[in-house]
Amino acid sequence: MNAGEGPHSYVRNSSCQRGVVDVAKPIIEEEIAAKLDINTRQNRFGIADFGCSTGYNSFPAIEIITQAINKKYKSPKNTSKTPEFYIFFNDVITNDFNTLFTSLPPNINYQAVAVPGDFHGRLLPEYSLHFVYSSWSLQWLSAVPEAVADGGSPAWNKGEILYTRDKTLVCDAYLDRFDKDIGSFLESRAVEMVSGGLMALLVPAVPEFWNPESEYTIPSDVGYLLGSSLMDMAKKGRFSEEKVDSFNLPYYFPTPEQLKVILIKNQSFTIERFEILNNPGKHTLASVNARAACFRAVHERLLTDHFGSAIIDELFELYTKKLEASPVFVNPDNDKTIVILAVLKRKLI
Amino acid sequence: MNAGEGPHSYVRNSSCQRGVVDVAKPIIEEEIAAKLDINTRQNRFGIADFGCSTGYNSFPAIEIITQAINKKYKSPKNTSKTPEFYIFFNDVITNDFNTLFTSLPPNINYQAVAVPGDFHGRLLPEYSLHFVYSSWSLQWLSAVPEAVADGGSPAWNKGEILYTRDKTLVCDAYLDRFDKDIGSFLESRAVEMVSGGLMALLVPAVPEFWNPESEYTIPSDVGYLLGSSLMDMAKKGRFSEEKVDSFNLPYYFPTPEQLKVILIKNQSFTIERFEILNNPGKHTLASVNARAACFRAVHERLLTDHFGSAIIDELFELYTKKLEASPVFVNPDNDKTIVILAVLKRKLI
Repeated sequence: MNAGEGPHSYVRNSSCQRGVVDVAKPIIEEEIAAKLDINTRQNRFGIADFGCSTGYNSFPAIEIITQAINKKYKSPKNTSKTPEFYIFFNDVITNDFNTLFTSLPPNINYQAVAVPGDFHGRLLPEYSLHFVYSSWSLQWLSAVPEAVADGGSPAWNKGEILYTRDKTLVCDAYLDRFDKDIGSFLESRAVEMVSGGLMALLVPAVPEFWNPESEYTIPSDVGYLLGSSLMDMAKKGRFSEEKVDSFNLPYYFPTPEQLKVILIKNQSFTIERFEILNNPGKHTLASVNARAACFRAVHERLLTDHFGSAIIDELFELYTKKLEASPVFVNPDNDKTIVILAVLKRKLI
Repeated sequence: MNAGEGPHSYVRNSSCQRGVVDVAKPIIEEEIAAKLDINTRQNRFGIADFGCSTGYNSFPAIEIITQAINKKYKSPKNTSKTPEFYIFFNDVITNDFNTLFTSLPPNINYQAVAVPGDFHGRLLPEYSLHFVYSSWSLQWLSAVPEAVADGGSPAWNKGEILYTRDKTLVCDAYLDRFDKDIGSFLESRAVEMVSGGLMALLVPAVPEFWNPESEYTIPSDVGYLLGSSLMDMAKKGRFSEEKVDSFNLPYYFPTPEQLKVILIKNQSFTIERFEILNNPGKHTLASVNARAACFRAVHERLLTDHFGSAIIDELFELYTKKLEASPVFVNPDNDKTIVILAVLKRKLI
């Protein structure tokens, strides 16, 4: 994600990811009220946001969660006193935590803590988390699947930058990586969470069926339009086609069924809710430029690391033109991307 | 502290603060070997560095501490398995934690965590710390003592920017604030530490007696030379003299006796060691420019907040000239600043 608060920053270009927490709010509040076990013997309550970026979309979620928990502690039925809240903000080690800290809302009732590192592995002590949140983050893979970048593999993703539906072996390689990564994420959280703790995951996804003639999803938008923009630049000699062959984006948007199968496999959690939310963010990207800016904020660092920074402006100009010229892709109503809200509960050990 | 890694950064200009950990190393190792209680029932071992800045001086200290603790766990006498290490890096909320995270040494055996905020108050959960470290940080006060900035008070510090020996009431106001601040620091740590946990504090200090005709200390250097540079600039019309009157630096270097009295007052800790170390850092600032650069890295943000950034270059040029022209101050052998190493142990509750 782009750092800071400038015109290409994630802060200014992530409205698409922001809206979803408002839709999820009543469900999260309901689950906390009904199912969260707050009888902690310790005077601490640990909440983590895995994939917090610079905090802009994280702070409203943390407010919803802490208010719902506070309400529960203050209910007449409860006898234990409200504990201290510690919020563990996690993202990759190169994340802009300085911006996160300096933009914390005023008068917060918690201590903010930054925990950098890959959330597919262990990051926090045993039994330190009572509530886990993650929004628009679990689609990120720990790495590009090896086979898709391997010229000798049948799953080699030549000339493209993301899985596309017509390449089954590439899709399978991505799904396999996603499966293992979600597995590692859950195993790590199972160690870190207390029994009875809750986890709310908001995972961007795609429906089982959608019509590529008249509809699209975020991965197909990026895969086709951004991918072909890069290939066009390669053909113009800006860089080699091999450079595009060796570039693949490390994320995967599952179908609800694919995600459900992966979550069920894990033995440490029960699935309390599994809701498909309409993606409320897509209409925040009503203009072609807004969408290009959002995609740029998310992808710029990955693209720069591979192609260098000199190509970025031209690439997104080209992408914007392709978007404008695509009757299917230009209309946000055709965006069939969905968001899955899964609420899991840590089983009693 | 100045952020980043540029020519005026703290990273490049803090050799003075760095050397001290090498001198303290054998004592810290000895205390850990002899006195640290490692029979923790939990699989976590919490270490905090209060006032870590961008990590450059913190990482070597953390390595010394973790190695000494590891050695103890691996000794034949010990039966418990080596726990997971969590290092809580603390500094003010505007600290450059991004630089800290991206400059962590390779292959560290701990999870790094950033905990921003004022270390005079509570920052971490109860019983979460087993070892506390703080070097060249406790001299920073929570605020400038009110009386010294108050034109109506007998302790008003007119025309100066720090306490100087001849103004007893100003000195008293600073000592009083230091006393309360160390008290708050210890009270907060007493809650956060486990029984039997150790704390190693490296506190810059001044001797009971030194001769101002032929010797100096860091506070006298800053107070006299930087203070008079600011007054000279006021007289030249760069800003008003009132602007200097209302500026005071928020730190205090105690004498060993003053610090000892404050530490003894706290009922939660026993004093295991109280050593006066010769300040090993002073000879790293052999040139006038190196000393000016070190002082600039430490003071620039405070000065900029009050006087604006336009005056900084001129101020440090003037300071450098004054330093060159001062036979007493120019020779680092005359620097009588000392460092106190206090090792405290959390009493059994």
